[in-house]
Amino acid sequence: MLKPRSSEEVSRILRHCHERNLAVNPQGGNTGLVGGSVPVFDEIILSTALMNQVTSFDRVSGILVCQAGCVLEELSQYVQERDFVMPLDLGAKGSCHIGGNVATNAGGLRFLRYGSLRGTVLGLEVVLADGTILDCLTSLRKDNTGYDLKQLFIGSEGTLGVITAVSILCPPRPKAVNVAFLGCPGFAEVLQTFSTCKGMLGEILSAFEFMDAGCMQLVQQHLRLDNPVQESPFYLLVETSGSSTEHDTEKLSCFLEQVLGSGLVTDGTVATDESKAQALWALRERITEALSRDGYVYKYDLSLPVEQLYDLVADLRARLSSRARHVVGYGHLGDGNLHLNVTAEAFSAVLLDALEPYVYAWTAGRRGSISAEHGLGFRKRDALGHSKPPAAVQLMWQVKALLDPRGILNPYKTLPARA
Amino acid sequence: MLKPRSSEEVSRILRHCHERNLAVNPQGGNTGLVGGSVPVFDEIILSTALMNQVTSFDRVSGILVCQAGCVLEELSQYVQERDFVMPLDLGAKGSCHIGGNVATNAGGLRFLRYGSLRGTVLGLEVVLADGTILDCLTSLRKDNTGYDLKQLFIGSEGTLGVITAVSILCPPRPKAVNVAFLGCPGFAEVLQTFSTCKGMLGEILSAFEFMDAGCMQLVQQHLRLDNPVQESPFYLLVETSGSSTEHDTEKLSCFLEQVLGSGLVTDGTVATDESKAQALWALRERITEALSRDGYVYKYDLSLPVEQLYDLVADLRARLSSRARHVVGYGHLGDGNLHLNVTAEAFSAVLLDALEPYVYAWTAGRRGSISAEHGLGFRKRDALGHSKPPAAVQLMWQVKALLDPRGILNPYKTLPARA
Repeated sequence: MLKPRSSEEVSRILRHCHERNLAVNPQGGNTGLVGGSVPVFDEIILSTALMNQVTSFDRVSGILVCQAGCVLEELSQYVQERDFVMPLDLGAKGSCHIGGNVATNAGGLRFLRYGSLRGTVLGLEVVLADGTILDCLTSLRKDNTGYDLKQLFIGSEGTLGVITAVSILCPPRPKAVNVAFLGCPGFAEVLQTFSTCKGMLGEILSAFEFMDAGCMQLVQQHLRLDNPVQESPFYLLVETSGSSTEHDTEKLSCFLEQVLGSGLVTDGTVATDESKAQALWALRERITEALSRDGYVYKYDLSLPVEQLYDLVADLRARLSSRARHVVGYGHLGDGNLHLNVTAEAFSAVLLDALEPYVYAWTAGRRGSISAEHGLGFRKRDALGHSKPPAAVQLMWQVKALLDPRGILNPYKTLPARA
Repeated sequence: MLKPRSSEEVSRILRHCHERNLAVNPQGGNTGLVGGSVPVFDEIILSTALMNQVTSFDRVSGILVCQAGCVLEELSQYVQERDFVMPLDLGAKGSCHIGGNVATNAGGLRFLRYGSLRGTVLGLEVVLADGTILDCLTSLRKDNTGYDLKQLFIGSEGTLGVITAVSILCPPRPKAVNVAFLGCPGFAEVLQTFSTCKGMLGEILSAFEFMDAGCMQLVQQHLRLDNPVQESPFYLLVETSGSSTEHDTEKLSCFLEQVLGSGLVTDGTVATDESKAQALWALRERITEALSRDGYVYKYDLSLPVEQLYDLVADLRARLSSRARHVVGYGHLGDGNLHLNVTAEAFSAVLLDALEPYVYAWTAGRRGSISAEHGLGFRKRDALGHSKPPAAVQLMWQVKALLDPRGILNPYKTLPARA
């Protein structure tokens, strides 16, 4: 594994590989759910772990410039000490690098509030396949000079260039954060609670996450976490972030009164301190960990019209019946993003055949996305055609050929294998 | 001028032009400040004016899908009737098309709150130079399947493809909107007022615009508008948008008390009704109109570090002295975006030589952008090198060659003339 310390070193490595047709696998800290950063055959591993310096931070604008190997959690702490927050947060924050986050266009827990990295990333430094250092590391909120080349590299999973530095806009740290955990009697009520919530909490709403009873059962069974509300078919985690504790608490109370009074929600609890807020978030954030202890896990990360978000879970539960141990759904309801997981005692080709391409075709039938936030990596690249038309896939190949004519950057990833 | 009614018709036109090497100038409704949509020599004009149908609107998610020729103001009205707002608003809203807005990556008055079109545009349908219809018209908040091709067309000024349909995320219509107009004794106080404002208004802040005394004088003189506060070196327009009238009014009052009490602001007025709010906005929005009545106007649209935003105006005023009639600055302070304007009796090559490349070099020296939101078009394309390094310009040409190998789409625009 190579661990360069600067973009110049990355440039030398890539030039060397380019000249000799050697494949390179850039790594962004964690392995990811789709294997985007796992070497497959013969790739040289290039880790940005030693490129972990903050270059600058502007306390007026909140613009952070840093090297690609900075760990998200450390950046988060760095900017929080300066009264800002990172515009993204995800379960893997303790190990993932900001460069990897950008390369995979990570979504995560703050997407609902602060939006996509395509808006918050202001600049990138990227080393191209032939070793050219592309300096688009500006720190401007607005820049319409020519094509916005950095967008090519956001979400391209290291297949078009290696991100070596990032300029990103951090929002001010909210003065007040509230977390509520609610039980819901059905998915129709989940949707109505969401509409009510958007109307009543508006600009202070920062997360609207859901999980089903199966998820709750798994975190109780495998992680010994306690359910803080009465047993329900669905659970919601609602977070608000704002600039006035008094105003936000009042808005949240009105909302809770409304949804409890109308029966949309049957039980609820509000975190009164930081440790309780963390305990409530743990129920949602540690589902992945609980799943991994339940057996072999088939994972799907889908974007669907929010009204139909849970239909596929119910459908699959019936379709698979006893062949699966658990079929559960959770995710970022506010973003229309379902994490669908199926567990079984061990891997089974029969079960996989029952799942794929069924899940992809079901999603395509509703014009959904077969990968909302995890990317395609190695494992899902051949499913690209379910979400993108042939003309788009062809243009992607042309872009790949333009940026990486010898195909040395993360081959076998993102784009489908060609006949 | 050709006015197709569907993407299929656009496709036939482009295929025809591609086969015969005929240049095409796609038009998005208004001419723009940099002449991006003005035919230069021999182009066939392609107007999307007849492609003005709304395809769908989802009342839960706020996702609007429409043809590219819809006029922004009409869309704005359409979604407002359904309790949403368009994520962008600009002075030219009455004539500009949404396709043109996307093609130029328009910024405008709501950028501070709702961010870039790169985040709010969810999908595009684009006709490529050879007539291929590229359907990336998804309506998903998150989609990480392959490369995000639509980003290539956002902000590329019609040089890479013709946008024929747009899917865009509209935020809920705020229940309460407040507008305050303030007088400030100096630019240092403007900056401190901005910091105070961000801290105290936080998530409800939706615009923070500034204009100097010269701008006020121009709107008074040429448009007979009244200055609603006492004469000051700088004026600020602060807008809040939120979900609770009571909370927002309270936050705004606290903020005004603080900045008036500390002397950061010397006078202020708050709009108590819709018509007064519009009158306050008119002072800021009609500066362009007042400038055009003042003589020949040299216009610059720059991104700069916010602390240095006004230095260039003062510098130029001294540099040009009596050669210019007026040197004024205004703009989106919250976005670090200065609109710098110089008026003179008539066009003068001597004055232009005093301005360019001086303004561009000054901006480049602070790593600013020589076009924050207006694009490069025809008039500023040769200045691209002031904001982007040679490796980036070269890659832009490669992207252009890939998407439009015969160079038929809006030639003479965006990318610099080649030797």
